[in-house]
Amino acid sequence: MQMNSIKELATPAAVVDVPKMQRNIARMQARADDLGVKLRPHVKTTKCLDIVQRQAAAGAQGITVSTLKEAEQFFAAGFPDILYAVGIAPNKFAQALALRERGCDLKLITDNAQVAQAIGVFGREHGHRFEVWIEVDCDGHRSGVPPGSDLLLDIGRALQEGGSMLGGVLAHAGSSYELNTEAALKALAEVERSSCVTAAERLRAQGWPCPVVSIGSTPTALSAQSLQGVTELRAGVYVFFDLVMANVGVCAPQDVALSVLVTVIGHQLEKGWAIVDGGWMAMSRDRGTQQQARDFGYGQVCSVDGEVLPGYLLSGANQEHGILSRQGGEPDREIAQRFPVGTQLRILPNHACATGAQFPQYHALGADGGISTWPRFYGW
Amino acid sequence: MQMNSIKELATPAAVVDVPKMQRNIARMQARADDLGVKLRPHVKTTKCLDIVQRQAAAGAQGITVSTLKEAEQFFAAGFPDILYAVGIAPNKFAQALALRERGCDLKLITDNAQVAQAIGVFGREHGHRFEVWIEVDCDGHRSGVPPGSDLLLDIGRALQEGGSMLGGVLAHAGSSYELNTEAALKALAEVERSSCVTAAERLRAQGWPCPVVSIGSTPTALSAQSLQGVTELRAGVYVFFDLVMANVGVCAPQDVALSVLVTVIGHQLEKGWAIVDGGWMAMSRDRGTQQQARDFGYGQVCSVDGEVLPGYLLSGANQEHGILSRQGGEPDREIAQRFPVGTQLRILPNHACATGAQFPQYHALGADGGISTWPRFYGW
Repeated sequence: MQMNSIKELATPAAVVDVPKMQRNIARMQARADDLGVKLRPHVKTTKCLDIVQRQAAAGAQGITVSTLKEAEQFFAAGFPDILYAVGIAPNKFAQALALRERGCDLKLITDNAQVAQAIGVFGREHGHRFEVWIEVDCDGHRSGVPPGSDLLLDIGRALQEGGSMLGGVLAHAGSSYELNTEAALKALAEVERSSCVTAAERLRAQGWPCPVVSIGSTPTALSAQSLQGVTELRAGVYVFFDLVMANVGVCAPQDVALSVLVTVIGHQLEKGWAIVDGGWMAMSRDRGTQQQARDFGYGQVCSVDGEVLPGYLLSGANQEHGILSRQGGEPDREIAQRFPVGTQLRILPNHACATGAQFPQYHALGADGGISTWPRFYGW
Repeated sequence: MQMNSIKELATPAAVVDVPKMQRNIARMQARADDLGVKLRPHVKTTKCLDIVQRQAAAGAQGITVSTLKEAEQFFAAGFPDILYAVGIAPNKFAQALALRERGCDLKLITDNAQVAQAIGVFGREHGHRFEVWIEVDCDGHRSGVPPGSDLLLDIGRALQEGGSMLGGVLAHAGSSYELNTEAALKALAEVERSSCVTAAERLRAQGWPCPVVSIGSTPTALSAQSLQGVTELRAGVYVFFDLVMANVGVCAPQDVALSVLVTVIGHQLEKGWAIVDGGWMAMSRDRGTQQQARDFGYGQVCSVDGEVLPGYLLSGANQEHGILSRQGGEPDREIAQRFPVGTQLRILPNHACATGAQFPQYHALGADGGISTWPRFYGW
C-alpha cells in the first residue's frame, strides 16, 4: 500500500524513517567489514522481512533470532543460516528438528550440560546431528558459562561425545546498555572478545572443533577496537537505534529511525499537558532511560517532520493516552496553542525492540515522503 | 484447537484459568447488580471475543473500547452498544462515522470544546448526528474537565447547539491504582460518583439531556458504597485481576486468572538464578508494582498447577529471557534442584492488560484441565 503523506496515517502508527535506517545499516555493516568479521544481525528488533532484506542487501550474512517463530518465518522467506540465540529447552527440540529437516541451517545454543546431553540423546533417537554453540558469560549479565570454567568443557564434551556438532561459542555483553563512556564501552568490548576467544581456544585445545566465535551487542559492536579471533558480530537495535542507545552514547536522538506518530486529543491547561492518542500500548511500557543519565519518560517529542522538540517528553502513559509535557520547571501555559487538538507529532522510543513489537506493521517513510506498509509479526 | 494438558503448550504461553476468570466476572456483575447499575466492561484488557461473550452472558450490557479497532472487531462480532472511551480527535471522525452508518451505536467522548464543535460541523456536513459524552476529571489523573467548570458547560453547549447528541458524562478514577486501603478506595469511589453526578446535574440544569452517568475503574467499582445517580459502571482488569490489583487490595494473587507459562532453560548457580524462556516480550515491560507496597519484579512465580511459590519472583527480564530468583536474602543454592531445566512454571503478571497484549492468543485452561485456544487481536 502506498500513501502520499505521513499525515494520512491513522494514529498511533509506527513510522520508520528509511534514509536514517539505511544509514544505520550501512554504519554497522562498515564496522563489521572494517573489523574483518561477518555481521549476523539480530532480527528480534524488527521481525520484518522488508527490513532484514535490506540488511542482507547491505552485506549481512545469516541472521540471529530470539524465537523459533522468527526462525520459521525467516527460513520460509529465504534465510537458511539462522542462530537461535536463546538457550534451547527440551520442549523445543522437536520444533528445531523439524526446521533442520526442512533444510534450515539452524544453530542452537546452551549453557547447560544436561541440555547438551539431552540434545545428543534426542538427535540419536531421530538420526539427526544438531549444531550447537556454547553460550559464554562475559559480564555476569544473564546466561552463559564462565570462559575459564570446567562447565564449559563439560558441555563441550557432552556435545562432542553425544554426537552433536560443536559449532562455536557466543557471548553477548548485555551490560553494555548500562555504560555511557567510550572508555568503558571499549573496555567491555575487549572483555567480550577475549572471553569468547578464550572459551573457543580452551575447547579447541581439547581437540574439538569450534569454528565460530560470535560476539556482539550494539554498543560493544560500535566500540570494539579489535576483533582478533572473532568470526562474527551480532547486533540488533542498531537498525533503528533508540533513546537508550543515545544515552549510552552510540547514536544521537537524530539517528533514531523509529518513531510513533500520534495525534493531540486534548489538554489539561493548568498542568501544561497535551494528551495524545499514543500511550503505553503504542510506546510499550519500556522505561529503559529511567536509570540512565537522561530520563526521557515514555519518549522524546518531535514534530511531524521528525524534528526533535527539545524539552518536550511523553511524561506519562496510560493504555491509549500519552501525557505530553515540558520537562522540569513551570508547566507550559501555551501548550494548547503550541500543540492544538489534531496536531500530529512523532515520539522517539526508549527501546525500539519493545516499541516496534506493539505494532502489526511499520509505515516506512521514504526520502520522497512516500509511505509503504511493511508487515511485522509477533508471538511465539 | 483442544489440547489435553497445559504441559503440551509451547512456551511462553498466556494461560487463562477459566474457573477463576468466571468467578471474577461473576463478582463484578454481582457488584453492578447490587448497586443497581448496568455493567459495561472495558474490553481493552482482553481484546478476546470468547471472553467478552462470557461477560455478556453473565449480564454485562454494552462494552467499552480503547481503540476504534476494538469497536470494529466487536461490532462485527455482534456487540453494537459501544463506548469509545478515549477522547476523539478529528482524524478519527470518518472512521467513527462509518461505524455508526453501519448501525453501530458508537458513543464518542471529549473534554475539549473545539473538538465538540468540530464533531458538530463534521456531523452536519455528513448529515449525521453523533452521540458524544463529556469526560469529567475526578482526580487529576489524566483527561477530563472539572465537574464545576465553565468548560463543562461550554462543551455541552457546543454539542447541543452543534447538533450532536449529549449522551452522558463519564469519569475514570485512574488514581485508584495508587491506593491500598479500603477507606481510601471508598472515599475515592465516592468522589468519582459525586463528580460525575454533579457534572450531569449541571448539564441537565441547562435544559440539556444527559441520560448516562458512567463511572468506573476496577478498584473503585469494587469499593463503592453507593452509586446514587450513576447509571453504569465501567471496569476492565477485574476479568483477570493482576498483581497491581492485589497490591491495591481488591483481590488476592490466588484470584489472578492470567499467567504466563514458561520453561526453565538454564541456571546461574552462584547467583541462585533460574533462567526461563519468558522475558519482557512475554510479561510486558510493565513494572506496575515497582512503586507499590510489594514489588513483584516482573511477576510472581507459581507451579505449573498454578500454586503460588512464595518468595520466588521473576526478578529480571530481557527480551526472551526471564531471571527467576528468590526475593531478598541469600541466593537459593538449590535453584537447579528446585527448578531443573525443562521445568514448567506459571508467572502471574503485574498488569494483565499489558501482558495479555503480548500474545496472539490465550490458552484457556478449563476446570477439567483441557485447553482451548482463544484468539485475541492487537494493533490499531
